[in-house]
Amino acid sequence: MTEPFSPTARTKVQRLPDRGKYDRETVYRILDEGFVCHVGFVVDSQPFVIPTNYARVDDTLYVHGSSASRMLRTLAGGVQVCVTVTLVDGLVLARSAFHHSANYRSVVMLGRAMPVEDSGEKNRVLEAFTNHIVRGRWNDVRPPTEAELKATSVLALPLEEVSAKVRTGPPKDDEADYALPIWAGVVPLPVAPGAPIPDPRLNAGLVPPQNVLKYSR
Amino acid sequence: MTEPFSPTARTKVQRLPDRGKYDRETVYRILDEGFVCHVGFVVDSQPFVIPTNYARVDDTLYVHGSSASRMLRTLAGGVQVCVTVTLVDGLVLARSAFHHSANYRSVVMLGRAMPVEDSGEKNRVLEAFTNHIVRGRWNDVRPPTEAELKATSVLALPLEEVSAKVRTGPPKDDEADYALPIWAGVVPLPVAPGAPIPDPRLNAGLVPPQNVLKYSR
Repeated sequence: MTEPFSPTARTKVQRLPDRGKYDRETVYRILDEGFVCHVGFVVDSQPFVIPTNYARVDDTLYVHGSSASRMLRTLAGGVQVCVTVTLVDGLVLARSAFHHSANYRSVVMLGRAMPVEDSGEKNRVLEAFTNHIVRGRWNDVRPPTEAELKATSVLALPLEEVSAKVRTGPPKDDEADYALPIWAGVVPLPVAPGAPIPDPRLNAGLVPPQNVLKYSR
Repeated sequence: MTEPFSPTARTKVQRLPDRGKYDRETVYRILDEGFVCHVGFVVDSQPFVIPTNYARVDDTLYVHGSSASRMLRTLAGGVQVCVTVTLVDGLVLARSAFHHSANYRSVVMLGRAMPVEDSGEKNRVLEAFTNHIVRGRWNDVRPPTEAELKATSVLALPLEEVSAKVRTGPPKDDEADYALPIWAGVVPLPVAPGAPIPDPRLNAGLVPPQNVLKYSR
């Protein structure tokens, strides 16, 4: 599908509408770069926001976790959720306190998450999860057993009501403030993968594969 | 206050309870290192999860934004919120797909956010916001005008029903899997502040101050 998402009253970016993006390429690029989402759901009128991993396959976002988890048991009923992915790119330092900001890219997804029951589909989704963490990792590791598959709940959220919000570039100060003798600009905040730390119980002679050694997102 | 938070049925970490932390030092350290939170609130039974900046002052978490924003107008009514802060420290690569994980530190805060109306308090909170972005920045920049204060909504969430969740260390594989010839360990994912990018409209001769040049969190 290459058509943009249709903004709804709930997903249309109202404040600073120029930052709103609805094309699939922007949305998918953000989702594919990130790997932690915040899942919002409601229990007894109290909202909960829980961080968790995710993977996207085509037009579906998957979250997973223990079948015993409160969150996944709650969501499995098909309740309404909001899943948000945020990438922070930098701090925007203006000349006025008021115009300080951040450069970021975020995606907000609304809908109902439904459980994935079919064990074949579940296995394919877990492959996507593992490869979303490290490209090609699935082929390097021991695959899940039947018992592990049963102990894992996977929920699917169709990407239908979706919007992205993106801020880039320098600060925007009030015209009069540009004359002030105050340094202004952007501090980039990239995530910089460090050297892999071997498990203390790693067998002698094992070295990190290239997809770990040259890790990037 | 130095007493730990009392876990409630809603904040007690149920899955992997060893990861649950309730002492204020752990909670405050996470909140003071991060600067983006995800605010969850409910409108017409639909949860929304919106990323935004925050600052902590003593036992209160503040979020702010445009007085015109949908989120802040919704929250100002004193509705129930969940505010979550998540710091991702690394990827945990196990020998089995099943035991892949992430090292992270998160704080989940439940309660009712109330508007800060007093302009003196508002100003102090905006100072905390600005200094939470860059230490000491408040003294370097133009302070807010009365009109800017009016255009900014600040909401206060008392830190009462709070829990942290922390995972650190190497993967935990099934005992039999430690014999497999598969590299396992942790890929650290630190945020590495880059060289400051000057605003293209910066006046000649201005150099970044030390708190920007040597930026760290």
